[in-house]
Amino acid sequence: MTTESSPLTIAQLAELAGVSTATVSKVVNGRSEVSAETRAAVEELIRRHGYRRQRRRSTPTGLIELVFHALEGDYPVEITKGVAQIARAHDLTVSISDLRRDPHAADTWLEGVLRRRPTGVIAVFSGLTEPQHQQLTHRDIPLVLLDPADTPARTIPSVGAGNWNGGLTATRHLLELGHRRIAIITGPDNALASRARLDGYRTALDLAGLPADPALIGHGDFHIHAGQTTAHHLLQLPDPPTAIFATNDGQAIGTYHAAHHLGLRIPHDLSVIGFDDMPSIQWTIPPLTTIRQPLTDMAAAATTMLLTLAHGQPLPQNRVELATELIIRESTAPPAA
Amino acid sequence: MTTESSPLTIAQLAELAGVSTATVSKVVNGRSEVSAETRAAVEELIRRHGYRRQRRRSTPTGLIELVFHALEGDYPVEITKGVAQIARAHDLTVSISDLRRDPHAADTWLEGVLRRRPTGVIAVFSGLTEPQHQQLTHRDIPLVLLDPADTPARTIPSVGAGNWNGGLTATRHLLELGHRRIAIITGPDNALASRARLDGYRTALDLAGLPADPALIGHGDFHIHAGQTTAHHLLQLPDPPTAIFATNDGQAIGTYHAAHHLGLRIPHDLSVIGFDDMPSIQWTIPPLTTIRQPLTDMAAAATTMLLTLAHGQPLPQNRVELATELIIRESTAPPAA
Repeated sequence: MTTESSPLTIAQLAELAGVSTATVSKVVNGRSEVSAETRAAVEELIRRHGYRRQRRRSTPTGLIELVFHALEGDYPVEITKGVAQIARAHDLTVSISDLRRDPHAADTWLEGVLRRRPTGVIAVFSGLTEPQHQQLTHRDIPLVLLDPADTPARTIPSVGAGNWNGGLTATRHLLELGHRRIAIITGPDNALASRARLDGYRTALDLAGLPADPALIGHGDFHIHAGQTTAHHLLQLPDPPTAIFATNDGQAIGTYHAAHHLGLRIPHDLSVIGFDDMPSIQWTIPPLTTIRQPLTDMAAAATTMLLTLAHGQPLPQNRVELATELIIRESTAPPAA
Repeated sequence: MTTESSPLTIAQLAELAGVSTATVSKVVNGRSEVSAETRAAVEELIRRHGYRRQRRRSTPTGLIELVFHALEGDYPVEITKGVAQIARAHDLTVSISDLRRDPHAADTWLEGVLRRRPTGVIAVFSGLTEPQHQQLTHRDIPLVLLDPADTPARTIPSVGAGNWNGGLTATRHLLELGHRRIAIITGPDNALASRARLDGYRTALDLAGLPADPALIGHGDFHIHAGQTTAHHLLQLPDPPTAIFATNDGQAIGTYHAAHHLGLRIPHDLSVIGFDDMPSIQWTIPPLTTIRQPLTDMAAAATTMLLTLAHGQPLPQNRVELATELIIRESTAPPAA
């Protein structure tokens, strides 16, 4: 809690706001039958002092709310498996919400959460804003961010992967194979995971005594299509790369398509390395060399942290990073002579 | 309800069983502190007469329980999107459970469901047994089966895809391209979807006046690896097929690997058609021709049926089948001369 004093009960909030406890209760539970003015006054008190829920343990359904900014690809399945594994052991139910990249969906979802009073919330990648984070924590609903796109406020616990280290390892693998013209296709500039992988790439080149050629830094968005168009551009440079670090598996698939279109064989003419190691990626032709991000373990760790918070216990650390691992398959090889 | 008389309340059950209402309540809510003998007696009464829950509308959290026999691949994401879409419109929460192909997991899950009293349950593919179906319906918890592996009891509503028609359409597409040696890789023999696709294949051949060559019917299990080994076998027959209907997208990916291993080019040397049209399948090289199964729409339809049941209204029909559609991409072509 980032509040100035110890959190207040409904009765204390009602006294300070000069309204009934029923009215405060409506505000904290996300009900609509309160005037905008009263709501703002109570919200401001909660923001300043915090709110201590009574009778937490009487929550009728032990619910862990898992909220995705978008349900797409294998990623949500890997995460849900990890959350479900811990939830099962504690007899809790996992609920899933899909914000469909829609800011309004997050508001509606949040109103529902305040009514449902879950054991806690795990927010994946992005979707919730900083004020929404605060609304949850000020209402004493534990929140853990999983693979956050942005830097969370220091007070909000989060779980991520060793992205910088993964970027370093991927690039070193290509260097050790003998590549010197190594391109990268980044994710979105505002996603921390993307920035960390790029920095790992730069450092690996620097430690090998190679300058980072700005022409070899292609900008993507973690989607297959961006991987395809960016790789296509990189491979048509006057001095093209012999290897591409695609920074996620989707962009590696896009790179495969660009190479295929240009008649380049992987790995003979071009080495490609991804990032994530989604279960299906071992079935690309050739099977993709990639950096494994332990999504299921990350989700399990986030859930364990959430339960620690729900029991009112302090976390040993607010930020947990799980290690990534190089998985060598058949898409990387020494450059053609 | 398949019961002999109108369903009984807790008080009526207690009177018939000669136990307290508290004891009956423990049984119907899945609690453990009841003797095996008493539990069996109450369960038998519920099986015979049914159980009418009181105060259904006071369920604290409107929860739709979505239960998968396994969380794997894109399939759960496509389904969850459809359920979430309808749930959102009705201000309901979606909970996800993963039975991990484990029969014991289903028992534990069922105990939890009886305690949580959800608005209803959607069971995907398989995982629940017929007695488990009965336990839910006898407790007045609506149940809809989505893409059931087995024939459900006639009384249990279900949603599926037009599998037979899809099998017919896939095979006709290959016939129209001029193929005469068309192989099939089936799913598990006990999965109805698999049998229906095989029957559609046979009928298409029959209508074209071609005998179904038993050597061209390969047995799979809907997994990539089975697709690979079965296709490998088929392609090494003395008179190999010029086209393979893989009956799902995973087995089509396996077929791509077998063809690659044998130096066969798709579609020049071999045409391949899948079934499902998972979002990522458009990114195979070459992009896969397949039969689209509208999983998200099927899940939305199942959820709408569930809500109709939860409101105590009759369903217009107990079995809904959504149409499949041929999606032509680049993995099918006329056979090489």
